Amino acid sequence: MQTSTQNKTNLEVPKKFVYYFAAGEAEGNATMKNVLGGKGANLAEMTSIGLNVPPGFTISTDICAHFYAEGGKLPDWVKPSVLEALTKMEAKIGKKFGDVENPLLVSVRSGARASMPGMMDTILNLGLNDQTVEGLAKSSNNPRFAWDSYRRFIQMYSDVVLEMNSSLLEVTLEDLKAEKGVHNDTELTAEDLKSLVKKFKALVQQMTGKSFPNDPLEQLWGAVSAVFRSWNTPRAITYRELHDIPADWGTAVNVQSMVFGNLGEDSATGVAFTRNPSTGERKFYGEFLVNAQGEDVVAGIRTPQPISLLKEVMPQAYKELEDNYFKLENYFKDMQDIEFTIERNKLWMLQTRNGKRTAKAALQIACDMIDEKMITEEEAILRIDPASLDQLLHPTLDPQAQKTILAKGLPASPGGVCGQVVFTPEDAVELKEKGQKVILVRVETSPEDIAGMVAAQGILTSRGGMTSHAAVVARGMGKCCVAGCSEVEVNYTNETFKAKGYVIKKGDIITLDGSTGEIYLGEVKTIEPKLDGAFSRLMAIADRVRRLKVRANADTPTDAKTARDFGAEGIGLCRTEHMFFGEDRIDAVREMIIAETSNEREKALVKLLPMQREDFYQLFKIMDGFPVTIRLLDPPLHEFVPHSDSEIAELAKRINYDENRLKHKIHSLHEFNPMLGHRGCRLAITYPEIYQMQARAIAEAAAQFVKEGKKLVPEIMIPLVATAKELEILREQTVAVVEQVQKEQNVKYDYQVGTMIELPRAAVTAHEIARHADFFSFGTNDLTQTTLGLSRDDSSRFLGSYVSHGILPKDPFVSIDQIGVGTLVKTGVDLGRQAKGNLKIGVCGEHGGDPSSIQFFENVNLDYVSCSPYRVPIARLAAARSKLQRSH
Amino acid sequence: MQTSTQNKTNLEVPKKFVYYFAAGEAEGNATMKNVLGGKGANLAEMTSIGLNVPPGFTISTDICAHFYAEGGKLPDWVKPSVLEALTKMEAKIGKKFGDVENPLLVSVRSGARASMPGMMDTILNLGLNDQTVEGLAKSSNNPRFAWDSYRRFIQMYSDVVLEMNSSLLEVTLEDLKAEKGVHNDTELTAEDLKSLVKKFKALVQQMTGKSFPNDPLEQLWGAVSAVFRSWNTPRAITYRELHDIPADWGTAVNVQSMVFGNLGEDSATGVAFTRNPSTGERKFYGEFLVNAQGEDVVAGIRTPQPISLLKEVMPQAYKELEDNYFKLENYFKDMQDIEFTIERNKLWMLQTRNGKRTAKAALQIACDMIDEKMITEEEAILRIDPASLDQLLHPTLDPQAQKTILAKGLPASPGGVCGQVVFTPEDAVELKEKGQKVILVRVETSPEDIAGMVAAQGILTSRGGMTSHAAVVARGMGKCCVAGCSEVEVNYTNETFKAKGYVIKKGDIITLDGSTGEIYLGEVKTIEPKLDGAFSRLMAIADRVRRLKVRANADTPTDAKTARDFGAEGIGLCRTEHMFFGEDRIDAVREMIIAETSNEREKALVKLLPMQREDFYQLFKIMDGFPVTIRLLDPPLHEFVPHSDSEIAELAKRINYDENRLKHKIHSLHEFNPMLGHRGCRLAITYPEIYQMQARAIAEAAAQFVKEGKKLVPEIMIPLVATAKELEILREQTVAVVEQVQKEQNVKYDYQVGTMIELPRAAVTAHEIARHADFFSFGTNDLTQTTLGLSRDDSSRFLGSYVSHGILPKDPFVSIDQIGVGTLVKTGVDLGRQAKGNLKIGVCGEHGGDPSSIQFFENVNLDYVSCSPYRVPIARLAAARSKLQRSH
Repeated sequence: MQTSTQNKTNLEVPKKFVYYFAAGEAEGNATMKNVLGGKGANLAEMTSIGLNVPPGFTISTDICAHFYAEGGKLPDWVKPSVLEALTKMEAKIGKKFGDVENPLLVSVRSGARASMPGMMDTILNLGLNDQTVEGLAKSSNNPRFAWDSYRRFIQMYSDVVLEMNSSLLEVTLEDLKAEKGVHNDTELTAEDLKSLVKKFKALVQQMTGKSFPNDPLEQLWGAVSAVFRSWNTPRAITYRELHDIPADWGTAVNVQSMVFGNLGEDSATGVAFTRNPSTGERKFYGEFLVNAQGEDVVAGIRTPQPISLLKEVMPQAYKELEDNYFKLENYFKDMQDIEFTIERNKLWMLQTRNGKRTAKAALQIACDMIDEKMITEEEAILRIDPASLDQLLHPTLDPQAQKTILAKGLPASPGGVCGQVVFTPEDAVELKEKGQKVILVRVETSPEDIAGMVAAQGILTSRGGMTSHAAVVARGMGKCCVAGCSEVEVNYTNETFKAKGYVIKKGDIITLDGSTGEIYLGEVKTIEPKLDGAFSRLMAIADRVRRLKVRANADTPTDAKTARDFGAEGIGLCRTEHMFFGEDRIDAVREMIIAETSNEREKALVKLLPMQREDFYQLFKIMDGFPVTIRLLDPPLHEFVPHSDSEIAELAKRINYDENRLKHKIHSLHEFNPMLGHRGCRLAITYPEIYQMQARAIAEAAAQFVKEGKKLVPEIMIPLVATAKELEILREQTVAVVEQVQKEQNVKYDYQVGTMIELPRAAVTAHEIARHADFFSFGTNDLTQTTLGLSRDDSSRFLGSYVSHGILPKDPFVSIDQIGVGTLVKTGVDLGRQAKGNLKIGVCGEHGGDPSSIQFFENVNLDYVSCSPYRVPIARLAAARSKLQRSH
Repeated sequence: MQTSTQNKTNLEVPKKFVYYFAAGEAEGNATMKNVLGGKGANLAEMTSIGLNVPPGFTISTDICAHFYAEGGKLPDWVKPSVLEALTKMEAKIGKKFGDVENPLLVSVRSGARASMPGMMDTILNLGLNDQTVEGLAKSSNNPRFAWDSYRRFIQMYSDVVLEMNSSLLEVTLEDLKAEKGVHNDTELTAEDLKSLVKKFKALVQQMTGKSFPNDPLEQLWGAVSAVFRSWNTPRAITYRELHDIPADWGTAVNVQSMVFGNLGEDSATGVAFTRNPSTGERKFYGEFLVNAQGEDVVAGIRTPQPISLLKEVMPQAYKELEDNYFKLENYFKDMQDIEFTIERNKLWMLQTRNGKRTAKAALQIACDMIDEKMITEEEAILRIDPASLDQLLHPTLDPQAQKTILAKGLPASPGGVCGQVVFTPEDAVELKEKGQKVILVRVETSPEDIAGMVAAQGILTSRGGMTSHAAVVARGMGKCCVAGCSEVEVNYTNETFKAKGYVIKKGDIITLDGSTGEIYLGEVKTIEPKLDGAFSRLMAIADRVRRLKVRANADTPTDAKTARDFGAEGIGLCRTEHMFFGEDRIDAVREMIIAETSNEREKALVKLLPMQREDFYQLFKIMDGFPVTIRLLDPPLHEFVPHSDSEIAELAKRINYDENRLKHKIHSLHEFNPMLGHRGCRLAITYPEIYQMQARAIAEAAAQFVKEGKKLVPEIMIPLVATAKELEILREQTVAVVEQVQKEQNVKYDYQVGTMIELPRAAVTAHEIARHADFFSFGTNDLTQTTLGLSRDDSSRFLGSYVSHGILPKDPFVSIDQIGVGTLVKTGVDLGRQAKGNLKIGVCGEHGGDPSSIQFFENVNLDYVSCSPYRVPIARLAAARSKLQRSH
């Protein structure tokens, strides 16, 4: 109660909050998405540019906040303006709301600033009651249509507004069909439907204790409230979290006069894209259903026909639709996703919005639109969601691989994935948490399945088209999806599906090819993606636009090679310890660890030197003159030793060491909080020989490389520095080794010694540390752990609930915590550059590959980001967008 | 080389760096300690105020830096000024340096800004060679004295300047004594000593490859250099670390004409204090030796006579000494520690400085001096080192206890301690590290023993007086010491000592009473200290002066009682989890932890509620209206459960739970980095019931207390907050519980809900957090761990070497890391008060009882500090000093 009162006093009543639109008169326009939501703004705009749009009005998003401030109640002061707009609609159309002769029916739809397909509620045919249904029957000259509309309305209204268990009405419908011996709804007669309505209303009375509202205005207020309420359903909240949509945006409500695609064979309804949303091909693309209402297409209940057939069925309407889509695309300068209804051969536009598309399509469309002079190169960059590139960069199925095909469905979202079959979102989530890969198999998906879809590698549905829920959502997530695969017979009870005579059980492995729609038995080999011309072209534009350099975190020649192929401009982080685990060297590493004198330690290190030197030489060669930043040993030593008694015994035998002494030595390395323990540069303060060996390996590798006539500036990075003194001491030792090697080898080359900034203390004393550093690299993984006091290894137990409680906006290990960790990064940059104006500064935590973090790094003027090789293209694009969007 | 060159260019050659002093003419004065060192400044001052001081000059501390900048070499440009001053000395005294008839001999002594007794080197009798020794023999009419002086000079010079193994000369001397059948040095004749000098010189030639320098000037440059060099000996560095003396202060060098206390029975040398340094009694106090040189007294080789006897032996000199000490104390307004020599009945003052004293003496002297109108009350406060109070606040031996006395020595430094006997500093350090208490037993101590003295509970020596090395150093450390206990026969070889017929072996337990000088067999019971009038009086002054409030960290009624007795103004931190470990409740805590539903959890919590309520009620009662801050549960849950299989089995049986399930549950609580894990307020976000129970226990206890007519404002503290949202949620839940209890009990009282600031993120987002907090309490323990990325439990492995490498100035868990952690504290204070001007802010980490940290907290305007009960008086005094000394 506290909260709502507070909000109430803060909220101002807006001057205008109901925006009317009808031919020749629209109070809103496309720029007003914040106020009208995307749907409302575009309905107004379509009206203005002369398309046929059913008249209506939009209740602005402001009212959503007022609705919640009133404790989930529509404020009374909203109603007069709504009634005024309704009166204008009636005048325009010549029907009256609630009129028993020729009733005006309306749809009530949500519409937020960002598209949230299927997430919120819609009510159609509102205004029908026991009296107006008769009027509709007469005016449409189609009693069956009228009663069918009425029973649909009651079903929707009961579900959405009255929040009844909708399956009760569904079962009643199915019972009636069985009783009548019919298979489809369409086979029910007007009389059947009339009796069904009666049963429905009795059920509503019985379940809710109230009779179904007969007053159209009561229906209207109920529906408007329900749409506002649907903004905060769990599935809408999940969707917003997934897509970074702030909760305070709210939704608008669109009330629009109904047009009917289900008045007979001269009516239809459909959805279409102005270009192919899967490939980007510039070709009108969509689906329609004759004699159907809108939700029949989207819900995937009947499988619709391709849009090209509409040309033959309704040539006139098709012609107009084609004109419209050119107009719309020219107007909005982007690929449009449109909904339309044809009522007795007359085309009505119900919605247009920028269409969701695959990454592949987005790249193709952006390139085509540059060529069509529709957008600039910079605009093209801003059209591509960097994260979406992920789907292009991952493996697809190997065409040469042996495959046993199970079935073929629609190629709804590309990619090649395999995993265990599961049939419920709960199983998908559970197995995913156990580290298993799963394929979610459903007859069709609904918003309740979102969590399972997120958890799954890929989605397979047996029903629904390319614009079905599963297909749209999967494409948005960049997740592989095969939809409408009717050859697949799903049995939820047994948790099996049948295809080509095989019975696939829960837990069996299958493979999906989202680019062809094919489904295979077992695991199929995958291959690396080939990136096409549009990709390269946009990357080249991004490279021209961006200021931030992009490097890769790469420890092995394979990683380095991938990174170069993806356009990395150097290695920002080579973790030398990963090299320590090689089978040929791990025992030498262990001998070094258990050494009790510098002498013993040096003896073991001597064995490692040539291996490390070769490691570094290979990386220098692959990076071919690009900078290579090598981080000296970082993890605590106990990570390298075995811990079980039997392993220790084996090791003791192998290295000829007393078993008990070894056991004791290994136990003595135990730490309570290894993250905060004896690691990083602290090891080198205690055992200087380790870093000295590594510095020598780097220096010798560089000497060899430079002697071959190549150029290179190796960057030696000291981790976990907390104080300037640590770096001062270790820099001095490192420089001494490198100078010594240069003298020995009689070769001269430039090199740099820098440090990670990964502890809060390093950030707040960066001015002191900078005096001994040629560069900084923010280690935002550890900086996040220490700043938040949050162990990455332990926090999974509660981090999820932290994000869902809104305590943290996102997982701070994925996207940088800007106000906490970010403040320290900014402090570190400012202090560092204050001491040394030209200090080179980068970041090498996981955040270096996260687009919203990259925007932050651009804003605080880092010089480069470094990320995993597969994320390099994402980072290149994100860097370009960040440059274009930076705030200062 | 880099470093020295750098320093060289930065250092300016000072205009004046040699300061001459002789009767009627002193170029320096007592205010110039930074330039002249303490000894040099006071020699100049004593000269000015008309005391008899042997003429001489001081080479300023600036030259120390130049000495090191030149790579450990005296710069040539220093020499002319030295020679000039030497010429003035010669003129004044009428002797010439190096003169073969009547040679001027000089002493060369160190003297830093702060007194470092015995830490640096001294050379006496410089200027003697094979020629001048004959002159001295003639002019003194005492060949034995001349040759004895010469052999002493060679011994000292070989040790200090030539860095020879001094035991070689010592052995030669002992051999000679054996050969001559004599026991004391004094029994050797001039001829004996002459032959000894010859042997010494031959040995020097043999060991160093060079002949002993015959040229007095060469001797002088060598000695001056050796004194500068002694600034950086390991023992001097250790001493500086212990006493927070910066390395860059450097030492001055004092060159002074020799006077001799060893010219016969009319000569003497001594040291004295103007008041009793152990009790503070206003009574002249000291020791002297007839016919001896200065180091004979300090080194404790011969046991000296009490100063009162001097009155009888040399009444004239004693009278003058008495006059001098009044003059000096009046002049310096502090108790003085003076050194003097009587040469043929003439008194010479060799040194005066503010005397070191026990805490008890410091309090008494400060109070007496207030009464004597010598100093103000504020000055009195500044005279007491807060840390020194520690020795007063700890137990002394119970006079009622059964005791077996072993021996009685000098009560050199008070306190009652017991521990295992060890005979070497190495053993002391080793056992201390294993958590054992030890008593270091030595014939006498030397600077090499410092580390062992630090490690020991107490020190026992068999030789030396109240001003011996052991006594002086132990008093400075506030460590119990019994000195000069000649009844004790130490045998280093067997590692035993004999006393009263007992043979005490290494490892046996003994008890020392440093206040009586008695030594007891075994462990003797100790009792709490009684604090005398001087203590209370100065505490009252401190309380009047200070701004910072002082609270205590107290979890139990006993702690709370101690805290109140020591003057705590409330509880700043009550750790509720300590209450969870009670035998009567730990199983209920465990049931709560393994609960799988809120329901089960609440059932277990219901059992805990009445116990917690009673805990809090008791604390409220003891604190009697003072604020009590209660921190809700903080540690990770696995700290409360057993981990061994057998314990788990027992627990399962006791609480009637399936053993395997319990084992599984307990294993699932394991964390990799518990410090950064599921703890603090994170527990309450996941399991709100826990804090709700605790809030209810607090609210009910407060209700009961308030109903009894008492006043109280309980402060509920939420730990480990990283984000404002956590506090917002938990504050709301806490407030709801407290309001509910107030309604149930029909009682109204104020209460506060605040938070710990113990994560870097909390500090940098303090403005957001402050909006939901009535107070902040900085948890500087955890803030230090996270800011430095340093686990308190794991860092002992390397923290010592960090401090000794100068990487960290002090252990950051003892004294706050001002530039790192302190910056975040300051940020937190500034941001918090920016959002909420009147925000109450305190600190409850260990640093709350550390004087230098308290100065920091005063400077950043905290409202209070909270520390362990025994440190409350220290904090009260430190707070007062901090107020007087604050910089802004």
